[in-house]
Amino acid sequence: MRATILSGPRDIRVEEVPDPQLATTGGGVGRDAIVRVVAACVCGSDLWPYRGVTQPKTPKRIGHEMVGVVEQVAADVTRVKPGDFVIAPFYDCCGACANCRNGFTTSCLEAGSWGGRDHWGLDVDGCQGELVRVPHADGTLKVVEGGMPDESLIPSLLTLSDVFLTGHHAAISAGVRPGSTVAVVGDGAVGLSGVLAAKRLGAERIVAMSRHESRQRLATAFGATDIVPQRGDEGIAALKEMFDGIGPDAVLECVGTKESMDQALRSARPGGQVGFVGVPNGGPELPVRTMFSTNVGVRGGVAPVRDYVDELLPEVLDGSLNPGAVFDATFSLDESAEAYAAMDERRAIKSLLRP
Amino acid sequence: MRATILSGPRDIRVEEVPDPQLATTGGGVGRDAIVRVVAACVCGSDLWPYRGVTQPKTPKRIGHEMVGVVEQVAADVTRVKPGDFVIAPFYDCCGACANCRNGFTTSCLEAGSWGGRDHWGLDVDGCQGELVRVPHADGTLKVVEGGMPDESLIPSLLTLSDVFLTGHHAAISAGVRPGSTVAVVGDGAVGLSGVLAAKRLGAERIVAMSRHESRQRLATAFGATDIVPQRGDEGIAALKEMFDGIGPDAVLECVGTKESMDQALRSARPGGQVGFVGVPNGGPELPVRTMFSTNVGVRGGVAPVRDYVDELLPEVLDGSLNPGAVFDATFSLDESAEAYAAMDERRAIKSLLRP
Repeated sequence: MRATILSGPRDIRVEEVPDPQLATTGGGVGRDAIVRVVAACVCGSDLWPYRGVTQPKTPKRIGHEMVGVVEQVAADVTRVKPGDFVIAPFYDCCGACANCRNGFTTSCLEAGSWGGRDHWGLDVDGCQGELVRVPHADGTLKVVEGGMPDESLIPSLLTLSDVFLTGHHAAISAGVRPGSTVAVVGDGAVGLSGVLAAKRLGAERIVAMSRHESRQRLATAFGATDIVPQRGDEGIAALKEMFDGIGPDAVLECVGTKESMDQALRSARPGGQVGFVGVPNGGPELPVRTMFSTNVGVRGGVAPVRDYVDELLPEVLDGSLNPGAVFDATFSLDESAEAYAAMDERRAIKSLLRP
Repeated sequence: MRATILSGPRDIRVEEVPDPQLATTGGGVGRDAIVRVVAACVCGSDLWPYRGVTQPKTPKRIGHEMVGVVEQVAADVTRVKPGDFVIAPFYDCCGACANCRNGFTTSCLEAGSWGGRDHWGLDVDGCQGELVRVPHADGTLKVVEGGMPDESLIPSLLTLSDVFLTGHHAAISAGVRPGSTVAVVGDGAVGLSGVLAAKRLGAERIVAMSRHESRQRLATAFGATDIVPQRGDEGIAALKEMFDGIGPDAVLECVGTKESMDQALRSARPGGQVGFVGVPNGGPELPVRTMFSTNVGVRGGVAPVRDYVDELLPEVLDGSLNPGAVFDATFSLDESAEAYAAMDERRAIKSLLRP
């Protein structure tokens, strides 16, 4: 089969690799499924190794978001069967351990990662490819009832593997509820998803911090009531002024840099809450004295999307939510290099890949 | 009148000072009350300047917790009158600004501090003295209906000025709810108050981290179901083992050191929450990557006790809550030096002062 491989900084190749095989792991149990990928995509976090900011061992299989059709299942898989259309979260999880039972499948005690290793040390495919071996198929995969969905739904279903539910996690972590005032730091696909999630949760006023016209337009379509193009002290002053001189209740930090976290922490009103989902890129550490004096809380992290998908899927299927609008460019698998370049150069908000 | 003065490291004196006078501030408005102190106390945070860890300009009036009887009020005070028995929070607040309306009176836009300055730059008395000028009397003081309460209630009423409601804030900030599993880091008066607050909020299991027998006893009386004397990695391992191998839902950080915050962050289960009220003593900064990977949230800070007192006061008055048990030593005002020494040397959990 063909799959995308990161061979070095800004060097994305699509190569022939061995087809994945069902494995038997952990006490001779067959927990795997093989899924044929219908759609995958490029994540903002894929750009860190692509740019060489983080330096993984290369060549490396890459991609962690997909929807697809189950081709095979191992002997002990009971909830997933060949022919099922499935959404895969950006990690695999058993669905049964103490952390999975608590709603934090991202901390599954048997978790593994796409393009890395499973819990038992076996290689796992990246999701940007034709086929993927899925460990813990029963715990990991969400079956969309009714088989292959309408083509128009594919982009939005794909966002339930990561990006939209990561934005949702930012909003949940920031405590957004009906009537909340919200600012969103970051106008990438996750930040825009955060706008949509905040709207869905009933926020009364949502400020998108964005200086890019196409992203401002999508933010507005997703429910942003205000746009603030300024950053840093100017952006904070603009927000304070909009909200009684003290700032909004909730701030969604959807970037992961020192500057964006600083902006988020200083924007929230006293007693407010920062929900953060931007992968912290080597820091910064959080200023605990500032948090102490302002009572601004910080919560978030790697989004437990598998725990959210049951609640959000029906709204995507009935068309009331259209998070797939974050995809503004579509590529074939063979065009993966261009899919990365388009996002890297900010020509695309998010690139969809169709193997 | 006589008042306690910090004259230098470990140098507490009681001296004659001028009686406070009602002031007219901010647009010629008289917002003050003069309160005769019935009981005050020494806070763990008073020990930082006492020990010279923080170095305020000395001599300095000190103390920020009191209950007392109103002697005089200024012209524009409407909710408080001479003869009222009142509880003062450890800060003054207007009760009307955007932050006060949000339930974060600690961030009042006109706040001042006891023993420091009010919003208009006038000196304010410390609470360890015979009389105190209270700015924003209407917003700051909580009137206990019925005048002077029974002597037996004085210690518990005094805890509503800071210590018990600071423990309560730790529990609220950590998200404690019915059925929660909780660990409390710190066995000082605030930590013990956190145990009592967690019990009141319905926690199912409460672990007090303590190696001092008298404090273990009080923790148990307050509702702790388990005692863990170990600290650091050993303490964390003990907690993990007690809770499914992953740790408790909520951890109350009631110390404020690098070690205690580290212990709290590493003890909570994935997706759990740290509520912190220990005044951070110069750090540490919070490890955002750890928080990201575990989804452990951090929230807390200076406790908005004035916002909590309405809810908790009835339970103190009817005897169903007895947070005053944290006072295990009582001193006259003239014995203030000994009241400090007893806490500094851990001979007392918390010292009560009766002017």
